[in-house]
Amino acid sequence: MIAAQYVGNKGFEIVQGTDQAPEAGEVKLSVGYVGICGTDMHIYHGVMDQRVNPPQTIGHEMSGTITAIGADVEGFEIGEKVVVRPLDWCGECPTCKAGLTHICQNLKFMGIDSAGAMQSNWTVKARTLHKLPEGVSLKEGALVEPLSVACHDVSRSRLKAGEKAVVLGGGPIGQLVAAVAKSVGADVLVSEPNESRRAFAEKLGVQSVNPLETDLAAFVDDWTGTKGADVVFEVSGVKPAIDAMTQIAGRRGRIVMVAIHSQAPEIDLFQFFWKELELLGARVYEAADYDWAIELIASGKVDPAPFISSVTPLEELGKAFASMDNNPQGMKALIECNAG
Amino acid sequence: MIAAQYVGNKGFEIVQGTDQAPEAGEVKLSVGYVGICGTDMHIYHGVMDQRVNPPQTIGHEMSGTITAIGADVEGFEIGEKVVVRPLDWCGECPTCKAGLTHICQNLKFMGIDSAGAMQSNWTVKARTLHKLPEGVSLKEGALVEPLSVACHDVSRSRLKAGEKAVVLGGGPIGQLVAAVAKSVGADVLVSEPNESRRAFAEKLGVQSVNPLETDLAAFVDDWTGTKGADVVFEVSGVKPAIDAMTQIAGRRGRIVMVAIHSQAPEIDLFQFFWKELELLGARVYEAADYDWAIELIASGKVDPAPFISSVTPLEELGKAFASMDNNPQGMKALIECNAG
Repeated sequence: MIAAQYVGNKGFEIVQGTDQAPEAGEVKLSVGYVGICGTDMHIYHGVMDQRVNPPQTIGHEMSGTITAIGADVEGFEIGEKVVVRPLDWCGECPTCKAGLTHICQNLKFMGIDSAGAMQSNWTVKARTLHKLPEGVSLKEGALVEPLSVACHDVSRSRLKAGEKAVVLGGGPIGQLVAAVAKSVGADVLVSEPNESRRAFAEKLGVQSVNPLETDLAAFVDDWTGTKGADVVFEVSGVKPAIDAMTQIAGRRGRIVMVAIHSQAPEIDLFQFFWKELELLGARVYEAADYDWAIELIASGKVDPAPFISSVTPLEELGKAFASMDNNPQGMKALIECNAG
Repeated sequence: MIAAQYVGNKGFEIVQGTDQAPEAGEVKLSVGYVGICGTDMHIYHGVMDQRVNPPQTIGHEMSGTITAIGADVEGFEIGEKVVVRPLDWCGECPTCKAGLTHICQNLKFMGIDSAGAMQSNWTVKARTLHKLPEGVSLKEGALVEPLSVACHDVSRSRLKAGEKAVVLGGGPIGQLVAAVAKSVGADVLVSEPNESRRAFAEKLGVQSVNPLETDLAAFVDDWTGTKGADVVFEVSGVKPAIDAMTQIAGRRGRIVMVAIHSQAPEIDLFQFFWKELELLGARVYEAADYDWAIELIASGKVDPAPFISSVTPLEELGKAFASMDNNPQGMKALIECNAG
């Protein structure tokens, strides 16, 4: 087997990996496809070296096939197609005990805090697995993780059919949020300066607007008949979107903070008072979000195909990372580990 | 009858008021007591002159007795003790039509945007009235409005018995929030630098801490067994509290923004992501909050007596405003219009 190792400073090495036999509670997978996440790009740029501690095999958006099953694992069979929910929770902290294992106080993220999926075989805890139904391919399965992020965001927003939602930022997660929001019957508007990303949204059947050319607040005021947006998803991570979100949200509007703002931006709290706004942080996903994402793909309500920009063999993954660098056209680059 | 008029620059004039006979849908009240609100102090300092447009009769925390009833008013009788919910909503905007009249898109606040209660008689729309039960005095009734603010804040927070809540700021509203939070069975901690305000909280049976002397984040971590606060009420309006609120809230913690921050402060959004925090804006109150506040007083669950710092005749209200200026000991100064 082979494994890709991130070695620092945009570098990867392909090494002979070590097959790990599954211990009790574990399952060994033949990895199918691994998507490159925005977080993987951050790692590639070296800004997370302290946390990742290279050399390290990264990757967490994956699909695979079960090839070996450890002791004390029930409900799985060799040959089954699965995806991994890459969260390693402690089970002991007050948050885990309250059932919120995805925000465990000692959470480790697989593929960042421990070895990830960009290798031929990956041995993981069986509790992280979700099965892929017959009709869902391994390529499609690699989209389950980012689609689950979008499902979690929409779930946090309590978005309902007939409501109006604005997605600020039309990158991969923004587009997936738009797709999930559309699937629940909401009217969706994507605000995105990049033309090709706006075109992508329009192909999904979602309205789009360029906030650098159009006064977004006036546009939303008109679009909603002065009511303002029921839900705003901030997926851009830029300050103008932080300013826009409080302007375009209507009374009792819910704003979901999807983007990670490492700087503390100035936020117009007066609008929170005046319109009784709600700001909801969202982090990764819960098991139900994975089930929802798999169902959306299996039922055809969300088609992952347009999101797959490229497929690159594991041995050449450095090319895939380079191709995604500063590439607003690219949505999701997949690394092929085993075609399955 | 007489009326107090705010004339600008900390000035009031006592003038001969005009008795207004109630028109259709209106009721005339003999005003009992009127509390001085933080907003009234802002008006007193001249910072709201553009909105208030002096000379103007202000005041909105009041109790009174019905003295005349206009046409088309049902369910009220002369001599009944009532309080006014001082909101004038349009009934036509999408927000009113959705039932959220308290955040009406064209909301006028009585006593700021129109004449208020600091006069012998006040004629108001009957739809603003809530009845006081037998056992509640007019003095106590003047506390219903600020207590309803606290009820609304606690309602927005979804605080439950057994949860831990931190109130940042021990002024009148902070203390009322603490009292309501205690009444629902929560463990409550008030963070307040001023010694007399901490003593006030302790007299209410609520724990207090001085955040200038004690590391609040470490204190709350210990108090909650590392879990963090379930609910944080930001009632102080100062930047250190904005920093503290995201530190002390636990996973899925709800932060209610009670204070009005006219400047846009920097907010640690990373904590919203990491802990899936929720920020909830709260503005005034709904009818149910008034009903709740009246029930809390009538049942003895919240005793308004300790909150009444002074009672001053209407003719001398300037003294009451002066006594409240930079007076952290003062909780609620009442103006007596008619002792009833």
